[in-house]
Amino acid sequence: MASPISAALKSRIRRPSMLSKLCQPKDMLHHFPNGSYIGWSGFTGVGYPKMMPTYLADHVEQNNLQGQLRYTLFVGASSGADTENRWAALDMIERRSPHQVGKNIAKGINEGRIKFFDKHLSMFPVDLVYGFYTKDRPSNKLDVVCVEATDILEDGSIVPGASVGATPELLQLADKVIIEVNTALPSMEGLHDITMTDLPPHRKPYLIMDVEDRIGRTSIPLDPEKVVGIIHADRQDQTLPNSPADENSQAIAGHLIEFLEHEVKHGRLPQNLLPLQSGIGNIANAVIGGLGDSKFKNMKVWTEVVQDTFLDLFDSGKLDFATATSVRFSPEGFKRFYDNWDQYKGKLLLRSQQVSNSPEIIRRLGVIGMNTPVEVDIYAHANSTCVLGSRMLNGLGGSADFLRSSKYSIMHTPSTRPSKTDPHGVSCIVPMCTHVDQTEHDLDVIVTETGLADVRGLSPRERARVIIDKCAHEVYKPILKSYMDKAEFECLRKGMGHEPHLLFNSFDMHKALVEEGSMRKVTSF
Amino acid sequence: MASPISAALKSRIRRPSMLSKLCQPKDMLHHFPNGSYIGWSGFTGVGYPKMMPTYLADHVEQNNLQGQLRYTLFVGASSGADTENRWAALDMIERRSPHQVGKNIAKGINEGRIKFFDKHLSMFPVDLVYGFYTKDRPSNKLDVVCVEATDILEDGSIVPGASVGATPELLQLADKVIIEVNTALPSMEGLHDITMTDLPPHRKPYLIMDVEDRIGRTSIPLDPEKVVGIIHADRQDQTLPNSPADENSQAIAGHLIEFLEHEVKHGRLPQNLLPLQSGIGNIANAVIGGLGDSKFKNMKVWTEVVQDTFLDLFDSGKLDFATATSVRFSPEGFKRFYDNWDQYKGKLLLRSQQVSNSPEIIRRLGVIGMNTPVEVDIYAHANSTCVLGSRMLNGLGGSADFLRSSKYSIMHTPSTRPSKTDPHGVSCIVPMCTHVDQTEHDLDVIVTETGLADVRGLSPRERARVIIDKCAHEVYKPILKSYMDKAEFECLRKGMGHEPHLLFNSFDMHKALVEEGSMRKVTSF
Repeated sequence: MASPISAALKSRIRRPSMLSKLCQPKDMLHHFPNGSYIGWSGFTGVGYPKMMPTYLADHVEQNNLQGQLRYTLFVGASSGADTENRWAALDMIERRSPHQVGKNIAKGINEGRIKFFDKHLSMFPVDLVYGFYTKDRPSNKLDVVCVEATDILEDGSIVPGASVGATPELLQLADKVIIEVNTALPSMEGLHDITMTDLPPHRKPYLIMDVEDRIGRTSIPLDPEKVVGIIHADRQDQTLPNSPADENSQAIAGHLIEFLEHEVKHGRLPQNLLPLQSGIGNIANAVIGGLGDSKFKNMKVWTEVVQDTFLDLFDSGKLDFATATSVRFSPEGFKRFYDNWDQYKGKLLLRSQQVSNSPEIIRRLGVIGMNTPVEVDIYAHANSTCVLGSRMLNGLGGSADFLRSSKYSIMHTPSTRPSKTDPHGVSCIVPMCTHVDQTEHDLDVIVTETGLADVRGLSPRERARVIIDKCAHEVYKPILKSYMDKAEFECLRKGMGHEPHLLFNSFDMHKALVEEGSMRKVTSF
Repeated sequence: MASPISAALKSRIRRPSMLSKLCQPKDMLHHFPNGSYIGWSGFTGVGYPKMMPTYLADHVEQNNLQGQLRYTLFVGASSGADTENRWAALDMIERRSPHQVGKNIAKGINEGRIKFFDKHLSMFPVDLVYGFYTKDRPSNKLDVVCVEATDILEDGSIVPGASVGATPELLQLADKVIIEVNTALPSMEGLHDITMTDLPPHRKPYLIMDVEDRIGRTSIPLDPEKVVGIIHADRQDQTLPNSPADENSQAIAGHLIEFLEHEVKHGRLPQNLLPLQSGIGNIANAVIGGLGDSKFKNMKVWTEVVQDTFLDLFDSGKLDFATATSVRFSPEGFKRFYDNWDQYKGKLLLRSQQVSNSPEIIRRLGVIGMNTPVEVDIYAHANSTCVLGSRMLNGLGGSADFLRSSKYSIMHTPSTRPSKTDPHGVSCIVPMCTHVDQTEHDLDVIVTETGLADVRGLSPRERARVIIDKCAHEVYKPILKSYMDKAEFECLRKGMGHEPHLLFNSFDMHKALVEEGSMRKVTSF
């Protein structure tokens, strides 16, 4: 604290008593003994603390403390890859929930070094407040919570950065708090709608009837006596450029927009649609891009994450309002967003993940939910998390929050994924999902580049026919048809044909892939 | 209509113009051409129309019309076994949703004659109003809807019988309505809290903050011009006696009550618990019975179906209020209920299934949800519907409405079910569920007669250890441990060990059962 406090930083810390808590990361090291339960702000790689986690990683690396400082780490969803992925590489994570992104962290999980559980993002924060994840500890407090803020207000409350996520609940549970005030970001005051968590029997309805409804305050309340240190941060969220929409994604977007037009025509959707939810990735980008080129106007977005393509949709004049729990732009997207702050800020609202992903609100608003799975089966179950039933990718995220409760629950996927061992790729349509995260009771529409299967109101056998017919790749269509024919024949004659399976051969396409390098080499059906 | 109208009936039809619509079932036959889309009132075998469906079945039987009068039949959940099961036996059901009970109807579904799909009971009525299940028809109307009422009020609205279910929405969508006024039941005016369905973007929050909150009216509004006939009904709901609690069920109840006491002790539950949801069957009865013998007081119930044991709980003075969408008592239970109507009616409220099963309200109230599955796997997925992945039992029901959104999501099952071919029975704990209706992200607690596994906050590998240890039967414990050990070994070394499976042997216990008559004869692990 020898260095003078810059004017920029001073203007962001509006509670004078807080200035005395300014410190360096090294001053905070003693708050992080091995085995601590830690919370970070952040969601989808934005709004996370940057200085303290990096300092701790440097400390472990420089002092060869790998495996000696291990933490239970709770973040709303994924944190910055430059922080948690580095922690994983340095063996600093004992336990992690509810979501993660990064090669080293996935490696740690799948090699058994990191205990990970994925949970519906709408539920994770409240389960934490319930004390469900700290039940073997003396209290349900987290030892130390480190959050990013663009401002500390007069009342000690903080204005978060580019995400809200689970920060309100993490702060509610924190024993000690470290705030990173980030002057590399503009002040984001006014961008957020903050609500705290009451517990049953005292919970109240979320009185949100439209995407732009505000029900909270613009900053997160915080007991100033919990704050043990304030660190000056001066770096941007480390995001990656957008994945461009490819040909398959554009074909998928085309089918989807045709479907939405059909629903409008038949009076099941209003002219301006209903609030849209869209995931992350190139299909999602193509869909949002396609909507920008469509005839729909006055659209609204109720989603988890706002990405670059939504800026295009705003600029096209077709998007009236968007709300989410994070804005995860590319570096160029953030520049565009910050440069045109006055233009966007009145049309965008960030809420906590309990609210953005709330089944209550998603169902009330009649959201159009769209997500990408690992694989979908012929009866419309979907796997969102575990390859071959065992290998964790990133976690469930908010997929099931939206797909269970949306008016339209839509899964979009290419019909095949590239394979190292088969030029025809791996089929994303399979006889039976190797892991089920979304059930047949949840999905209304499956769409691939080959077509769209509308499975509403269909029995499982009808569903299978239309999914294979519309969504499977030509190469895999005869294989899946053959499975279905044989399963139907075997099960119907045994009087167990509601959802016909060759149970003991249901993963044979996966087996052929693992053992022969190609799903096409299946021989049992 | 030659016969004079009885005073009893006249007192129940308070809108004079309706008296002229009194008729016999035979007068209504022409409203039921082959291929009609039909709705019935009813939920869990109570509150269903009794005269018209029975007449139609007699008509088909007497005139050998089997297979010539086939209908699409929508009921809130299951209807009376004496009606829909008979319809199934007479091949009168082309399509059915969202739930059913009865040997013949299950047979028709599993032999491929009846197209059935099961859907979350909270969603089925609104999806119907959306037009999702009538999208291939010229309008989203149902041709004819037949409902039971205990009264028709001056304004033409009706007071339902022992269930509300999807009746409000079915009437909302009906082109023509037939009312059965049942004088074998007492007038139930005041027992119901009726809300209708607005569609997005005009949906409102359900302003229910406690189980006894009323937000609707006591009768279902109905356009009198839709009513094509009124039939006098004079028979009770045909229910069966209760299944008594056995030794296993009592052990399960014991573990559960101990768990709830533990949660109260640690401050995670208030002294009077939170609203209880309990399914149907002998375990549910044992749990409710056990709560009657416990030290908990001032309990409340937010559930789908109220059964006989709740009357005991009322009588013990420990239950303050219960709300559900149906009261499905045994014949003795109904007698007790009707004989003590004044005592019970102020403590009981029936709502539509959209409200009783609403994730919005279940989550807000922090319900303790308890259900029985077909099987649970070592990672805490559960199968609620399809034996061996294919054979439909009754359908999903409200299990996932409650298990996804409850504060405590609890699955209770005996560790084994009886088997015809193995005196040790079939294990209800399996390596991988053959059908997944509840995911690992939904369940908090698994309990069998051998013990209780609290899986909150555990990684999959930790979960598997505790589920096998606490919940598996002694006979199956070594087999499941051996699966887990081998799966862990194989998957961890391949770097895919987040949720270790021997994917291509994951159903080998089921295979040994089918092929060798015993799950114990598995040889691959």
